[in-house]
Amino acid sequence: MYIDIQRNKGISITKQIVLAIVDQILSGFLQGGEKLPSVRSLSKELGVGFLTVVKAYQELEQDGYVHSVQGKGTFVHVKSTDTSKKYPEEKLTQDWQLSVQDYLPRSQFAQFHYVPEKIHLSSSMIDPELIPNQLLERELHHLIREGGTFFSRYGEVQGDMQLREAMQAYLLKKGIPTQPENLLITSGSQQAIDLIARTFVGPGDVVVLEAPTYPGAIDIFRGRGVTILTVPVDNDGMRLDILQHLCDRYRPKIIYTVPTFHNPTGTVLSSMRRRQLLDIAQAMQTIIIEDDPWSEVYYDQKPPAPIKSMDEYGHVIYLKGLSKTLAPGCRIGVLTASGSIFKRILAAKANTDLGTPLITQKLLLPFIESPKMVDHMDKLRNTLKVRRDLVIEILSEHCPEGVSWYIPGGGPNLWISLPSWMQSHHILFEAKKKQVSFLPGSACFPVDHENHHIRLSFSFMNVELLREGVAILCNILHSVILDKNISGHSSNFIVT
Amino acid sequence: MYIDIQRNKGISITKQIVLAIVDQILSGFLQGGEKLPSVRSLSKELGVGFLTVVKAYQELEQDGYVHSVQGKGTFVHVKSTDTSKKYPEEKLTQDWQLSVQDYLPRSQFAQFHYVPEKIHLSSSMIDPELIPNQLLERELHHLIREGGTFFSRYGEVQGDMQLREAMQAYLLKKGIPTQPENLLITSGSQQAIDLIARTFVGPGDVVVLEAPTYPGAIDIFRGRGVTILTVPVDNDGMRLDILQHLCDRYRPKIIYTVPTFHNPTGTVLSSMRRRQLLDIAQAMQTIIIEDDPWSEVYYDQKPPAPIKSMDEYGHVIYLKGLSKTLAPGCRIGVLTASGSIFKRILAAKANTDLGTPLITQKLLLPFIESPKMVDHMDKLRNTLKVRRDLVIEILSEHCPEGVSWYIPGGGPNLWISLPSWMQSHHILFEAKKKQVSFLPGSACFPVDHENHHIRLSFSFMNVELLREGVAILCNILHSVILDKNISGHSSNFIVT
Repeated sequence: MYIDIQRNKGISITKQIVLAIVDQILSGFLQGGEKLPSVRSLSKELGVGFLTVVKAYQELEQDGYVHSVQGKGTFVHVKSTDTSKKYPEEKLTQDWQLSVQDYLPRSQFAQFHYVPEKIHLSSSMIDPELIPNQLLERELHHLIREGGTFFSRYGEVQGDMQLREAMQAYLLKKGIPTQPENLLITSGSQQAIDLIARTFVGPGDVVVLEAPTYPGAIDIFRGRGVTILTVPVDNDGMRLDILQHLCDRYRPKIIYTVPTFHNPTGTVLSSMRRRQLLDIAQAMQTIIIEDDPWSEVYYDQKPPAPIKSMDEYGHVIYLKGLSKTLAPGCRIGVLTASGSIFKRILAAKANTDLGTPLITQKLLLPFIESPKMVDHMDKLRNTLKVRRDLVIEILSEHCPEGVSWYIPGGGPNLWISLPSWMQSHHILFEAKKKQVSFLPGSACFPVDHENHHIRLSFSFMNVELLREGVAILCNILHSVILDKNISGHSSNFIVT
Repeated sequence: MYIDIQRNKGISITKQIVLAIVDQILSGFLQGGEKLPSVRSLSKELGVGFLTVVKAYQELEQDGYVHSVQGKGTFVHVKSTDTSKKYPEEKLTQDWQLSVQDYLPRSQFAQFHYVPEKIHLSSSMIDPELIPNQLLERELHHLIREGGTFFSRYGEVQGDMQLREAMQAYLLKKGIPTQPENLLITSGSQQAIDLIARTFVGPGDVVVLEAPTYPGAIDIFRGRGVTILTVPVDNDGMRLDILQHLCDRYRPKIIYTVPTFHNPTGTVLSSMRRRQLLDIAQAMQTIIIEDDPWSEVYYDQKPPAPIKSMDEYGHVIYLKGLSKTLAPGCRIGVLTASGSIFKRILAAKANTDLGTPLITQKLLLPFIESPKMVDHMDKLRNTLKVRRDLVIEILSEHCPEGVSWYIPGGGPNLWISLPSWMQSHHILFEAKKKQVSFLPGSACFPVDHENHHIRLSFSFMNVELLREGVAILCNILHSVILDKNISGHSSNFIVT
């Protein structure tokens, strides 16, 4: 078992072992029933004291992640709600594989990405009924009739020139002047973040993330072995006073932010803070990743211009998820940056996959500038505003006291804060029994396993299922509180 | 400028600096006209002697990669055949970016991947006229009529279940028993190699590559900072006596091989060596990557069964490029492995891009098992055999003495060996003037810049252009030899 113990990290070694093993369990590397290494072998492998490992295993057992069997060892707790298909029993002959160390500390996001619940509030995707399927089909016919050769050839590594030209015009309208030469088409924004991370950061480098933030980004940066520092978020977005304070002590190489309809909280970084963030990046010679999947989908007022629009010195790498609101099945994003930073990301893209498939690029192309795109965005804004308002209404009426939330001005997510004694994993365990899922807040915290929040995505389910799901959630919250008041203590934490 | 100097590598520091800068030039990170760091600043940055850098810059100048201007500095040589579009002049305000170090030592493959020459013998792609465009279009219509929802949703991270089931049947016919649970759909084999590398190897790990080998794989492993050891290839594939010898001294974590119609040489690893290679991997507890894009496209006799078919203990990760021979625009590959090795690669895939687009998977699906697939492969074999024979015929008749080649039993590549005084870069420079391109052998050598080979791909051009291109190449070889005999010395090496 590979655990990267850092002795000067300001976190106890026991805690580091606990966090690493929790990461592995939540990422599915360690599955229910699997045996942990013996205390003796792990302490030897990591070069840490015997008692340190004993203490870590005790903590894991207290938190319900593992259980020990006298004379047999310590085992990952089997989840009673685990509906995923069991892998066929592997032969014992593959035991040698366990000694092959890897560079993957965590991969939690995918665990929550594809779940079979009926009422799926965990994924910030667009309701399939809102996708312009018919229009896309017409485009496909069009492409076929024109006898495109997009089946038979690789596109340019950098992406289709026509699509890049269309995106140049699109970004200009958002206040971002750029050139097709400085645009890279990626297989979604997840890939873009990954390309940047693999190009610029490694062990010893400092990366700043918001806390909470997008779990997929945490997985990537953790995988690069960087030192992660976190900055909390308030109603105006990232707390720049705290960022400044961190930057006085450390020099971050990258600051990753979702400034507009932040994931998961839904907040917007104020105009003033946008300017300040750029000033800090300039002073520190730091790269900002501005991840912007949702700025078009606002419900109340238009959000401020992207940070990239003020970027004179090439500090900002701007990411626009293109297919997220249009055709998620296409997995297309666009990245813009400048100078040698751009050139190096482009080289990484070539090494990664030699370019995004041409066919999915050609498919989206006609949309980007057409009036249909404008209509589609209007429809999304109107429909999702109704759903947001519905969720807020139900919560206001039915949610128990002590539970609060932030009303997002756009985007698909609602961030709910539970009382500090309440564990979102416990709520999720109960919710799944009733076919409801959400993203537990802990997945969104880069370092700690803060566990008192729920990210509820209202973009994927239609109004009926949304109503049903949120009502079920309110009922569960009520009954958990009732249970506590009766028994006088909180229910046990259960891994789900 | 980031150069990873290794003091115990057995290569002089001067040579390491030279190789690193050549890599950067051939990868396009350093472009014609760009200034190298001053000798003083580079020696300081790398912590090496002043004279070491002076010597490295002199070697680079002798080889024609750079030139120095008195009082101004050292500049990358401007390529006179450089037809690529110039990037717009970047503002001087972006100078801070140059101090941002990266983790990208090389990315050569993409430089040769997309070139505008009329007679394109550098890319091992399939002639677009051989792609079943009409059949694919019909499938698309089919998909649309069935009202698939593949626009609106992400697929599973692991890949579409139907496609995995079809691939299970397909691989079984190749002698590889597997389960859909142990198959991962990737965005081409390039991504698969990258996923494996990022999961399992980093600085300090040893990886064995064939020399020569697939340039895209070199780029990936160099990017992970591993120690690369090379094993030469003879007419029966990788030299296992030399591999065994290496393994007596080092313990490789990964052995990467293209055993069937090896890239670039076209050789086939014999059945006996396949068994031996597996034995070595078992003894060393090593992972084998078996990259198999071309085994279906044989011209004389069917190649031996894949190494994976004998793999009892889960040592082999088998890669099948799926779209390469069918629809390159789709960028689809399949990976199969077992046990925790597979599970960890799957987690890396989630972190990378959350899964390959659904639409391109659905598009290929109907083909995989249908009789059309068999017909298509028959057609490829017949057509490409004719082209291979044509190239061999022209070479035999028109090639000057001292030039030799290996006749490949399958696949798209022909490996031509030049006399040791002849530089393939020089030949490429002359060829490009006549609108002919090929892959210079140097791109295929992981460590040295061995430069006396040509990889000629005969799969992309039709018979007429192939005939013309190979004839032009023969003429150039003749005139270079004539030139040498007249002047008594070889032409200067020119970077092209």
